[in-house]
Amino acid sequence: MEYFECIFCQKEYPLDLFNPFCLDCKEPLLYQYSQRKRAFYPKKYWTLEKFLDFLPISEANQNFSLGEGNTPLIKLNRLSEKFKLPPIYAKNEAFNPTSSFKDRGSAVAVQKALSMGIERIGTVSTGNMAASTAAYGAKAGLKTFVLVKEDASSEKLLSIGVHNPVLVLAKGDYGQLFYKSFDIGRKHNIYFINSVDPIRIEGYKAIGFEIFLQLNSQAPRYVFAPVSSGGHLIGLIRAFLDLLQQGQIQGLPFFIGIQAKGCSPIARAYRLGKSKVERIEKAETIAHSISNPDPPGGNIVLKMIQDKKGKIIEVSDEEILNAQRILAELEGIFCLPASATTLAGLLKLSEEIKNNINDQIVLVITGSGLKSMKELELSKINICHSSLSKLDEKMKSFIIHK
Amino acid sequence: MEYFECIFCQKEYPLDLFNPFCLDCKEPLLYQYSQRKRAFYPKKYWTLEKFLDFLPISEANQNFSLGEGNTPLIKLNRLSEKFKLPPIYAKNEAFNPTSSFKDRGSAVAVQKALSMGIERIGTVSTGNMAASTAAYGAKAGLKTFVLVKEDASSEKLLSIGVHNPVLVLAKGDYGQLFYKSFDIGRKHNIYFINSVDPIRIEGYKAIGFEIFLQLNSQAPRYVFAPVSSGGHLIGLIRAFLDLLQQGQIQGLPFFIGIQAKGCSPIARAYRLGKSKVERIEKAETIAHSISNPDPPGGNIVLKMIQDKKGKIIEVSDEEILNAQRILAELEGIFCLPASATTLAGLLKLSEEIKNNINDQIVLVITGSGLKSMKELELSKINICHSSLSKLDEKMKSFIIHK
Repeated sequence: MEYFECIFCQKEYPLDLFNPFCLDCKEPLLYQYSQRKRAFYPKKYWTLEKFLDFLPISEANQNFSLGEGNTPLIKLNRLSEKFKLPPIYAKNEAFNPTSSFKDRGSAVAVQKALSMGIERIGTVSTGNMAASTAAYGAKAGLKTFVLVKEDASSEKLLSIGVHNPVLVLAKGDYGQLFYKSFDIGRKHNIYFINSVDPIRIEGYKAIGFEIFLQLNSQAPRYVFAPVSSGGHLIGLIRAFLDLLQQGQIQGLPFFIGIQAKGCSPIARAYRLGKSKVERIEKAETIAHSISNPDPPGGNIVLKMIQDKKGKIIEVSDEEILNAQRILAELEGIFCLPASATTLAGLLKLSEEIKNNINDQIVLVITGSGLKSMKELELSKINICHSSLSKLDEKMKSFIIHK
Repeated sequence: MEYFECIFCQKEYPLDLFNPFCLDCKEPLLYQYSQRKRAFYPKKYWTLEKFLDFLPISEANQNFSLGEGNTPLIKLNRLSEKFKLPPIYAKNEAFNPTSSFKDRGSAVAVQKALSMGIERIGTVSTGNMAASTAAYGAKAGLKTFVLVKEDASSEKLLSIGVHNPVLVLAKGDYGQLFYKSFDIGRKHNIYFINSVDPIRIEGYKAIGFEIFLQLNSQAPRYVFAPVSSGGHLIGLIRAFLDLLQQGQIQGLPFFIGIQAKGCSPIARAYRLGKSKVERIEKAETIAHSISNPDPPGGNIVLKMIQDKKGKIIEVSDEEILNAQRILAELEGIFCLPASATTLAGLLKLSEEIKNNINDQIVLVITGSGLKSMKELELSKINICHSSLSKLDEKMKSFIIHK
């Protein structure tokens, strides 16, 4: 028997993938593990096999894997040097099947669905999660329903639609669509693997476990992660809580969740010391993949951050674009604007972090910049023109003067 | 002392990164290894360390790695079943720092440049190689020169320019630009890591070595790979030649190089039994990343394929786009049109392959579909619209009727 739990009401519910909310407080439920001895299997090749004891599945069928996980942890020496900061690492989740961390969650949720005989899955998403769910649904041969906002860009629609799910552009309020999807799911036996689905969230833990292993079985001092619906950060924190409970680490990292100023309901609640996140009216930021004005996991994030060590901050679009350029120019990493919030946040907190020069900092790069090309402006790219005959002269000018 | 060799004239030259062509026949030179005992180090984490003995570098400095390699080999069960074919695997090179296999070569060439004290690198490319070289140049802090055709798409320019290289749009013949770059390189001490650079090609061998290890130290029966300039396929063949020479495998795979019909100079020469590739006048295919009308490595590819077991075939744009959709819909892999040529080629040869139902087939997926979104047509994506109130009804229609 498996259970979900409400961390607010401390109530437990028998696992029901179609009803992942507390009946009393309406908050999202989280997966509850029975107390048992758990171990990593780092020699296994597939990520889900490595961390199987810590995931809500009893086996991982490779036939439904797209090769998720095992992403690199890259040391950012030039960045540390330039800003006189402690060692910084990028956990680059762009190295995933659909180029974002969402695959971590989709992979586990699809395994769960198959193990329970579920034949239809779905998701409500504005982009990255939709492409990820559609890809995993295709691989597993599941009928997949993707509900997106009617103003989704053609770029997003293409990367979802290429996997041929039932793709529905829904007109109306996105928050309502999120909750309505569960009604539809119950009625038509569609398992909606939305942003705070308890199984999806467990999948994100593998990011934390890999960071731990890649740092030679140590926790970093700081973990910076973008925050939208909250699912990703909840998963990261739960990974380190697992490690703490197993006695693998002595203390938790300091978690810094970052939101974009144009859409920062959780950061605002944190700043004001509130215990509940209030929906904001309008989201306006270039970091589209973290622009959720009514984050369903917001209250859980807030509680976790207030209980443990951490904070939620906000950064401006200008700071985000600047950080995106710095990562590309200094470290060769071209990431989503949403991912660049991590560096923007680090630079914002750099004064307090400089005091601890031996601490390790991890930025979770959630996805590839190729997924959001529209936010880059061609006008900001240095380009020069030359004929073949003038090329030699042109090159000379760059070498002498620059 | 290190040497390059001409496989046509059997001449050897002292290694000179600025002069990678035979003085007699003008063909590209390849790296020559001294005969020594070589081994894999599969327990090492970084790809370049795993295969160091087989690469033209004596050490791999992690500070200049972006996390290249270790890409997954994914079994494509649904494809095998649908087309009644032997086991098929995708070696998915989209799991690389700039989402294409080019990173394999850039990584090794940049290590080589740094070990030799070279401070300036460059490349002539229409896209993927340019972004890769710019990213690695940025990571290593090298001054990087990227020469592209003047009609490069803004999508490509953005993904290159974000790393802030010296980016020059050159007006004039692309073939001439390729050869001119070496003159410029010699003059201004810029190491041009172009498509058939001997060090770059050695980097591609790691793809072959990983396939071998992932198939439990066996060679597959067939390897399908797209062919443009020729560098990639040369590297793949050299990997398996190394394995053969080391006694790790008993025979070579059958190599099938695939070109797009609209630009297939090597396939044409192969079909006509010629020993030299003739430049074609005009390239016209949606598979832009393999549309080189004058492939500098063409003659080497031709010789290798004629000497060893293999063939070069061509597929139409329609077959390519069809294969791209099949991979996305059945297997959840969204790849470049150029990469989809591998499946298109397999389907073309399926009759002769069906006879050997126990053989293993590997398709090398060279890059992510996100790098070439313009070739997808929104009109071919199934999309439906719904209001929130009608959503329930809409979903029902998909479940009952489909």
